[in-house]
Amino acid sequence: MLIQNIQYMTTSADGKWVVNTGDILIKDHRIESIGNFECDETVEKLDGKGMLALPGLVNGHQHTPMSLLRCYSDDVTLMTWLNKKMLPLEMKMSDEDRYWGALLSMAEMIKSGTTSYADMYIGIDTIGEAAVESGIRSVIARGLIAMDSDYEGRLKEAENVVDRWHGKGDGRITTMIAPHSPYMCPPDFLRAAVNLSKEKNVPLHIHLAETKDEEKMIQEKHGLRPVEYLKQAGVFDRHVLLAHGVHFNDADYETLKTVQGGIIHNPVSNAKLGCGISDVKRLMESGVKVGLGTDGPASASSLDLFLEMKAASWFQKLKYEDAAVLSAHDVLSMATQNGADILGIGDEVGSLTVGKKADILLMDMNKLHLTPSHEHANLLVYSATGQDVDTVIIDGKIVMRGRELKTIDEEKVIANAKERTKELLARL
Amino acid sequence: MLIQNIQYMTTSADGKWVVNTGDILIKDHRIESIGNFECDETVEKLDGKGMLALPGLVNGHQHTPMSLLRCYSDDVTLMTWLNKKMLPLEMKMSDEDRYWGALLSMAEMIKSGTTSYADMYIGIDTIGEAAVESGIRSVIARGLIAMDSDYEGRLKEAENVVDRWHGKGDGRITTMIAPHSPYMCPPDFLRAAVNLSKEKNVPLHIHLAETKDEEKMIQEKHGLRPVEYLKQAGVFDRHVLLAHGVHFNDADYETLKTVQGGIIHNPVSNAKLGCGISDVKRLMESGVKVGLGTDGPASASSLDLFLEMKAASWFQKLKYEDAAVLSAHDVLSMATQNGADILGIGDEVGSLTVGKKADILLMDMNKLHLTPSHEHANLLVYSATGQDVDTVIIDGKIVMRGRELKTIDEEKVIANAKERTKELLARL
Repeated sequence: MLIQNIQYMTTSADGKWVVNTGDILIKDHRIESIGNFECDETVEKLDGKGMLALPGLVNGHQHTPMSLLRCYSDDVTLMTWLNKKMLPLEMKMSDEDRYWGALLSMAEMIKSGTTSYADMYIGIDTIGEAAVESGIRSVIARGLIAMDSDYEGRLKEAENVVDRWHGKGDGRITTMIAPHSPYMCPPDFLRAAVNLSKEKNVPLHIHLAETKDEEKMIQEKHGLRPVEYLKQAGVFDRHVLLAHGVHFNDADYETLKTVQGGIIHNPVSNAKLGCGISDVKRLMESGVKVGLGTDGPASASSLDLFLEMKAASWFQKLKYEDAAVLSAHDVLSMATQNGADILGIGDEVGSLTVGKKADILLMDMNKLHLTPSHEHANLLVYSATGQDVDTVIIDGKIVMRGRELKTIDEEKVIANAKERTKELLARL
Repeated sequence: MLIQNIQYMTTSADGKWVVNTGDILIKDHRIESIGNFECDETVEKLDGKGMLALPGLVNGHQHTPMSLLRCYSDDVTLMTWLNKKMLPLEMKMSDEDRYWGALLSMAEMIKSGTTSYADMYIGIDTIGEAAVESGIRSVIARGLIAMDSDYEGRLKEAENVVDRWHGKGDGRITTMIAPHSPYMCPPDFLRAAVNLSKEKNVPLHIHLAETKDEEKMIQEKHGLRPVEYLKQAGVFDRHVLLAHGVHFNDADYETLKTVQGGIIHNPVSNAKLGCGISDVKRLMESGVKVGLGTDGPASASSLDLFLEMKAASWFQKLKYEDAAVLSAHDVLSMATQNGADILGIGDEVGSLTVGKKADILLMDMNKLHLTPSHEHANLLVYSATGQDVDTVIIDGKIVMRGRELKTIDEEKVIANAKERTKELLARL
């Protein structure tokens, strides 16, 4: 496939995003070549005129089936939200509910320009099926919660996910081991999860430092800060995706300096649940890689990463009372290459680079709210929305064109998600 | 015109937004009746199935021609932004630039669900023309800045705007007197503006307490806090639209308690320029009415009030570290009736009420990201965007249907705005 006469965005040596013009040739899932050339008529052509190509966005932290609970409970404190509203319904979810919830999330993500994402949930087989079907690039993991004492059973499930799904969907699906959080995993369970990640040679995915309550809880229970608790369990000896990272002290930043992987910042969820603003500036200055995520649809309410990019920049500017902090250029990198690196797939995706997998968005820039065009990075972050994405290519395959999904029947997903939600509520 | 079988939103006695179903009859610019009824074939019908009707949104603070400078300068401090980037270009703007900039803003506002807005700028005749043409409801004012000593000349221009434009466009256009800010208006100039507003019987529109620098400047120059400075000039004896309101102390909140009009909160602009978060919760608890605005497109980058609604709620939740603060219901009221009240047009618009002018949005709720539908207020504020607005009715007239503008040639506006911007930059 040849994308012709397209403006496309790459980063220069100083980390700034620049606009180039040319053609992008895609072959066997990958970006074969970028430049100016001709192809014969056997090659499918895509006219890129008026469009802007950028690497597909990476949503680094998600719980896809929770789309069925979107806007079910807002404007309440986190503990009420979680214990009184979310968990009772999540306990009643069937595999079928999770399947349609996951597919709804994936459809929404593709429509708003997300091509890769990381999932932590239960009933992972249904999520794996939805991922294969939708064509999205997915890093899936069984969330490990010590609700009962059947540690062995839980770890076996996590292992099964790796064995069953790693490499599926032409390699689009990879896996992680996901001990839920410091407060949901006792020390031996957490250590066993770390060992399993070593054994299976896959990274870890864990929530960390989301709330002040977590800090208090771990301190009281183990006499340690959450970061120390993870360190003692060996979490930082592994490549690890750390979700949230809002509440750290000086010693924590020191510990995090050498982390492999990094922090997935979820600004909207952290705001909506009143958790606070992660200190992205300090994390970056400490050398920690920071990516972006939405968290589950039931807290973020939207899976549009363009919204998270805005929120990330606004929140840091507010935190530091300085408009110069966290520029549009920084934020675009968070939502692409940084996220890909943290998901452990940064060699394969995250930028428009020859040899990488072809995960590409074509943005329709011929819009009132994207006029005029002084600086494309600013326009993308501060003015564009997921609804300006016209075409999405994942793994070299067109999964959306002219805003029409090619792999998913949108009406069917909406109808089924509504029906599953109705039945789920009836079971409560 | 009859909108049939539509879900529509009104507020109940406790301020909560509720969903009803029925028909809305529009006659002679106004909502004639709401209920369930039949009309003969002479009445134009609009099928409301799958749509959700709500009152048109009110953008309480704007500088429309600045759309030409959207994303021209981001991620720099406020003073650099204003003095080094904005002012030099604004000084070079022609009437034609301002006309196309204003029309671009109006087109973008209508497309994202704004039906009324307040403007403060120079070259107001061009804005008035664009407002009449576009069909938007507009409260316009000549921004008064004491750059030279020709106070009389400036005030005369402001008076001319009232004389020339008040009541134009079937009454859609009203006017205000707009002394720019405490720091741009010496005491006698400010007092003369207040007197003019009394004389012409129109409200005031002024920036207030946007930055900490402003506080320092007024203190040094006049030995007063900005609020005291305005009070002494008689600003609070009039109905006044106060834009921003970020930096207040206890005494200020006490003074503001009895203000007629209220504060227009511009969360995105305040964040992007690193100004801080207005204490909306405290203002509301003090009995001050708070509406929403974008500020100019050059600071906000987007004129989508759905984005401002999200930002307003997120920021208060972050400020108070409490997810229960500033609910979706509160925010919807800010963006509709509160804003209308502050603009001095709250008896005519702001809610779906029989007898009011018919300013109505039809939202297309059949979308992935608006599925499922647990609670409509939450979905509108936290999940919807301006691009989900399907139909816009202003003053009983359809100005957008199926996302197609009826009063504005979109392609022509985009082309002209780009051309004007190019020429403006060349003049620099």
